[in-house]
Order: sequence, then structure tokens, then C-alpha cells
Amino acid sequence: MALYVQKFGGTSVGDPDRIREVADHVARCRKRGDEVVLVVSAMGKETDELLRLAEQVSTSKPGREMDMLITGGERKACALVSMALHDRGIESASFTGSQAGFKTDTTHRNAKILDVNPYRIREALDAGKVPVVGGSQGVSSDNDVTFFGRGGSDTTAVALAHALGADACELYTDVPGVFTTDPRLVPDARKMDHISFDELLEMTATGCPKPAMRSVELARSHGVTLHVRSAFSWVPGTWVTEEAPMERAIISAITHDTSEAKMTVSGVSDRPGVAALLFRRLADAEVNVDMIVQNVSAEGRTDISFTLPHEQVAVAASAVTSITDELGADAVITDDDIARVSLIGAGMQTNPGVAATMFETMSAHGINIEMISTSAIRISCVVREAQAEDAVAALHAAYELDKAPEDRIDV
Amino acid sequence: MALYVQKFGGTSVGDPDRIREVADHVARCRKRGDEVVLVVSAMGKETDELLRLAEQVSTSKPGREMDMLITGGERKACALVSMALHDRGIESASFTGSQAGFKTDTTHRNAKILDVNPYRIREALDAGKVPVVGGSQGVSSDNDVTFFGRGGSDTTAVALAHALGADACELYTDVPGVFTTDPRLVPDARKMDHISFDELLEMTATGCPKPAMRSVELARSHGVTLHVRSAFSWVPGTWVTEEAPMERAIISAITHDTSEAKMTVSGVSDRPGVAALLFRRLADAEVNVDMIVQNVSAEGRTDISFTLPHEQVAVAASAVTSITDELGADAVITDDDIARVSLIGAGMQTNPGVAATMFETMSAHGINIEMISTSAIRISCVVREAQAEDAVAALHAAYELDKAPEDRIDV
Repeated sequence: MALYVQKFGGTSVGDPDRIREVADHVARCRKRGDEVVLVVSAMGKETDELLRLAEQVSTSKPGREMDMLITGGERKACALVSMALHDRGIESASFTGSQAGFKTDTTHRNAKILDVNPYRIREALDAGKVPVVGGSQGVSSDNDVTFFGRGGSDTTAVALAHALGADACELYTDVPGVFTTDPRLVPDARKMDHISFDELLEMTATGCPKPAMRSVELARSHGVTLHVRSAFSWVPGTWVTEEAPMERAIISAITHDTSEAKMTVSGVSDRPGVAALLFRRLADAEVNVDMIVQNVSAEGRTDISFTLPHEQVAVAASAVTSITDELGADAVITDDDIARVSLIGAGMQTNPGVAATMFETMSAHGINIEMISTSAIRISCVVREAQAEDAVAALHAAYELDKAPEDRIDV
Repeated sequence: MALYVQKFGGTSVGDPDRIREVADHVARCRKRGDEVVLVVSAMGKETDELLRLAEQVSTSKPGREMDMLITGGERKACALVSMALHDRGIESASFTGSQAGFKTDTTHRNAKILDVNPYRIREALDAGKVPVVGGSQGVSSDNDVTFFGRGGSDTTAVALAHALGADACELYTDVPGVFTTDPRLVPDARKMDHISFDELLEMTATGCPKPAMRSVELARSHGVTLHVRSAFSWVPGTWVTEEAPMERAIISAITHDTSEAKMTVSGVSDRPGVAALLFRRLADAEVNVDMIVQNVSAEGRTDISFTLPHEQVAVAASAVTSITDELGADAVITDDDIARVSLIGAGMQTNPGVAATMFETMSAHGINIEMISTSAIRISCVVREAQAEDAVAALHAAYELDKAPEDRIDV
């Protein structure tokens, strides 16, 4: 008998039919003899609807009240799922985040978990019940309701799996698993059977939307085995573990991200301390700078480019403009039409051919590379946004990611 | 500086516009220097929608899960109202029933309040905030979420007003106050400025839909002054107190109720113990018998008629049928097409003309009276359902309830 924490996303419990299908699935798991704890997100577009209502009554939208409002979505879903289980003869009880033992700090909208003591969940399991927990929520040290932010149900599930010593945390979603690239762009993208935490982390950091990055970090820290799988086909998905199997390929996946802009500060003095001044000022303005490139200097002046989220462009521009004199800069140029394309894999540093193949492939497809950054398991290139999809498809083909790992050529 | 607990019903907070209007009203009260605690119901038809969803996923609908689901409606509303107050510069905080200190028994769907300890509400008031409490909910002795049932927000408001020692509990609703009769039936029905608890109790027991009877009982027990008023016109409504003012009229109001059926058990033996047997059996089947009439006996046999809610007719019929032999009865006849018309007032027993006028008025309008029952402050007559509206209008005119109390003739 194994214990699984199973998290169901908003689409997976989006309407009464979906809720009944989830209940049928849990009935099958129980019949196999497994113990199950469910974590559910708000139904379908419910969170968006609650945000829209808040927008209509308030511009201030205080965090404490927003959390009281938004967490109602998960609470509603967990009550409904629990009822559907009862109808299948499965004893069940729903729990809010507070009832499930999630203690958090007081950072409303984006609360951090301080402690998880799921004694009521254990009691329910011991009584033969299936507990159904509202995701992304807890109670603060001020005894107020808190919300972990969008995607926080994944975090709830991983934290609960760790606290209960579960055999695995299964994240059920509307896709069958983690793919070698976005299957909407590349029809022969391949679902991976296994991936390591590190690689999945790099993927979520560079554009792969699910699972939520924070939950992958938490799972890696605590060694919680993840299983990303579909709530529609119910077939096995992608297992995420400390280390992927030995026979793994060098390259795992291609990701892309169009959520960033590029900002260039041109003609700055090429002397010590200039870059430090610039990025300290940006950090003070809470701008999340990602890739940074400094051009080769000419006549004692240089250009510094960096990428940042679209929505932080205005605040970054005003921060930089306030110090153009100190920087000796002559212009601040923003470019919204960029995309980042990333190659994720293990052992790339010891295989120099990997990077060469990437650059040759881009070149052969007439795609100009504007910035490059690398980590131990990732190579990212900034390209024109309009060329991003071509780049993804070309790279996916070049590394033969549509084939099973053992059938690929060496790169 | 006075302290008011103000309860807003579902229609009063039915959409974002209504929520903003409530916030504007609270801002006016605060400007006058009053302290305010709000209690809110779920928005508009939200509770119905949640019930419909439950219906779609579950036939068993366990009480614990239903309460978790339904109370989300009030919680959503209180978060939104609190946000709207913030936008008007009013410090505010929302509270669930549990956070507001409502401890209940474990009777899900219809929980009874065991204790109210609103220390967080007091703290919020002391900090200059307007607390906004989700109505009709609490936490059980098992630490589960409980719901007080439909109309329970009135009960929350009255209990909170008592616990806080508030100057009054104001029940804001979609009608301007308590009327001399249903204004949809009688256009010149008159809003009363004052009414006593006893009279309002009799009115709610005989068909007046608002406020919820349970909250009036609670207010009477604890001497909490009620003010039933409109959340649409914001003008003063009806004050409900221990005793109405001295200059009050004998007759206050006419009510009617079409929610009951009449059951007649005919030809029963006219001997001691027969009625006891019948009504004990009905009580065991949890049938709420209201009016009872036993005909004059003929040849040692008699008919017993009683009224009961439409939805209990089936269970009552089967209970009675199981003992027809013991009763010596020869038939059980159900009549769905009845209505009860009631006259509410004080001092009717010492004014015999009141009853006479009632019967004469009915007779003059060709309305046959099938059953009569009286209390110290009420006379009820069962008539054909089709004649109920005529009876209400005729009685309203006969007692001149459209006029101010001091202008009415003696009856």
C-alpha cells in the first residue's frame, strides 16, 4: 500500500463532469489499495472571476481581503470533490489550508509556508478517509487567511507529501507530462518519461509553464518524487527525481519565453564600478534582471544590455534614467520584441559540440543570436520574438528530440 | 457615539454596484461618529448556485461538505465589502464566522450557536476598524465549518449585537420595513414605524418572510433592539422593541401563508386517547402540525383536521395510514389548496369586536372560513387558497391599516 498526494489543477476540476471523473479516478486508486490525499485548485476560471469582482469594487484591494476572497475558490472545489467521493462510497472530508495545518508568514497574496502540521489529515487517513485539501492557502501567524499565489496548489501538494512522508506527489494537469518542447509549436514534441529536478527547474525558469517553479524547488529540497501527469487521459506522465536514469540523453528539452524585454544602456563609461552602480540601482527598484551582456569596449565607452520582465520596463527605465549622468550613458533603449530560446540538458559542459550545434542550427535558419547565457545544464539565446517558434522547431529537429533517447545521434 | 451591527442581505450586496452603495452608507454612518460592525449574506443568488453545483456532483451531499461549500458565499461577500470600504479610506477587516468567535454544535446545515466570543471584532473596533463578518456560519466543537441555514445571517447579526452590547441591530434588506400586510397584494399596505417582538414573531410564524423568525426569537430573548430597513432607499424602517409605543393600534398587520396543506382524518372513534395517538405518531414522524380542529361528534365518530407543510404531506399520510385501524378512521383526505390568513395585534382578547369584524368581513366577501385558531395576539383562519388574496385586501381595508394608527376607527 502506497500513499500518494494527488493535486488536481483548475482545468482538472473545471466543471461537475470533471469533478466526477476525478472521483472515479480516486475510486480506482483506492481499489488498488493505495492511500490518497487530494489537493485541489479553484475550478476553471474561478480565480480570474474573483479577481475581476475585486477589481469592480476596489482599487486598493488590500492583501488580507484579497486572500480571504481568492482562497474561497479552492475551498469551494475541495468541498465539491469530497461530496463526489461520498457518492462513490468513499469516506472523505474536505480541509481548508488552515485545517490541514499550513502555517504561513503574513505576506498576503504570496505567503510563505512556515510550518506544516497535518495532524487532521493523518487522523482522516487513519480513519480510512480520503482527505481533500484546498490548495495554495494557510493561516498566518496573525490568524488571518493567506494565499500562496497563483500556482500555489502545487506547493501545497509537495509540502503535504513531504510532511506525510508520501511515496510520491502526483501533479494532475491538462497536459500529459513534461515535453521536450512546447507541443503547440512542435507537433512531434515528445513526452519525457523521466527528468531530473535540476533540468525541470531550468525548464520552468525559461518558459515551461507547468509545474510551478516554486513547487519544483520545494520537491528538490526535500527529495519529494514528482509525477506530472494528465487528469484527462489518466495514463502515466513524467517522473521527476533526483537523478534521471543512466541511459539518458545529453539534451532533454527546448523551452522558449516571450515574457521578457531587452533594455540597452548605450555609451556608458567603461570603468570599474559602472555596472555595479547600474545593477544595484535596478535591484533597489526590485527589477528582476535576468541575462546581462556587455559589449566590447570602443574608445572607453561600451553598451550594457539586459533582459527583464515586460511589466517592469517602466520602473527600470525610470531607475536607469535617474543615473544616466553618473553612468555617463547617452541613451536607454527598450526592445519589447525579443524571445529567449533555451536548450536544457545534463553534461553539456563536457560536450562542447552541444553549443556549436545550437549556434549552427540557428545560423542555418537565418536566426540572429543577440545575447547568450549559459549554466551547467542550460544554454539560452535571445532572438527576435518573430523567429522564436522557428528556432524552437529547428533545434528540436537538430537534436532529434522527437526520437526516444537511445535512438538519437550524438551531437 | 453609538455602536450598530448592520446586516446586509443577499440582494443588498448582490453586485459590485450594490457593494459600493453599502460602503458609501457605512462611510456616512462613520462620518456621523457611529461605530459599525457589518454582517453580510452571500451575494444575490450565489447560495442557490452553490446548491445547484452540489446537486450536479453528488446525491448524498454530506452536511459537513455542504457547509464548507455554502459558507464560502458569505465569506466572498465579506471580503469584497471590506475591500470596498478600504477604497473609501475606511480601515476594515473581514472575518469568517469562526474568526468572529461563533462556536456551534455539530448539526451541519442547521447549526446552533453555543457561544459567541467576538474578541477579534472588539480588537478591530478598538483599532478604529469596521469589521465585516460572514453571516450564518461558525466553527463546531469538532473544528469543522458549520452553517446556520438559510436566513442565518440575521441570527449572526443579532447574536453579535448582543455579545458586543450594541445599541441596535439593523437588518438591511430589499424592503423598506415591516408592512401591515404584503404590499405586493395590497398596494396601500403601510410600513409600520414600530412593532413589538411578540407581534413580529407571530407575523413571521404566519407568512411574513423577513426577518428570519429565529433571529427575532433571539433578539426577543436578549432584548436586542432591531431595526428592519431598506438597503435601497436608506430611509428609516421599522423598529422592533420589547413594547411598542403607548399610542399603538390594536391591530398591527395581516399576514397570509400558502405553504401549508390540510389533512383530514375522518370518521375516527370519539373516545379518549384517539387524538393523543394520532399526534404522537405524527410527532414521531417529525411532522410539524400547526392548526388542529376537531368536529362536533356525531354517532360516536368525529373528523380531525390539521394543517402541515406541503412537503411533509407524504410522510404524514403514511404515518396516519399505519394507524387507521387503531384510530377507527375510515379515510385520510389531503387538501393542498388552502391558505392561512392571520390578523396580528395586541389586546385582541380584551376587544371581542376584533374577531367579530374579521369574521363579518370574510362573510361579506363570500369567503368561507374552514378552520380558526387564536393566540393572545393573533387570529388565524384557513380559507380556500384562491380566496386568500381577496381576504387579505378586505381585512386590510376593514381595519383601516392603510391609515396612521391614530386615524383608525375603533373596531
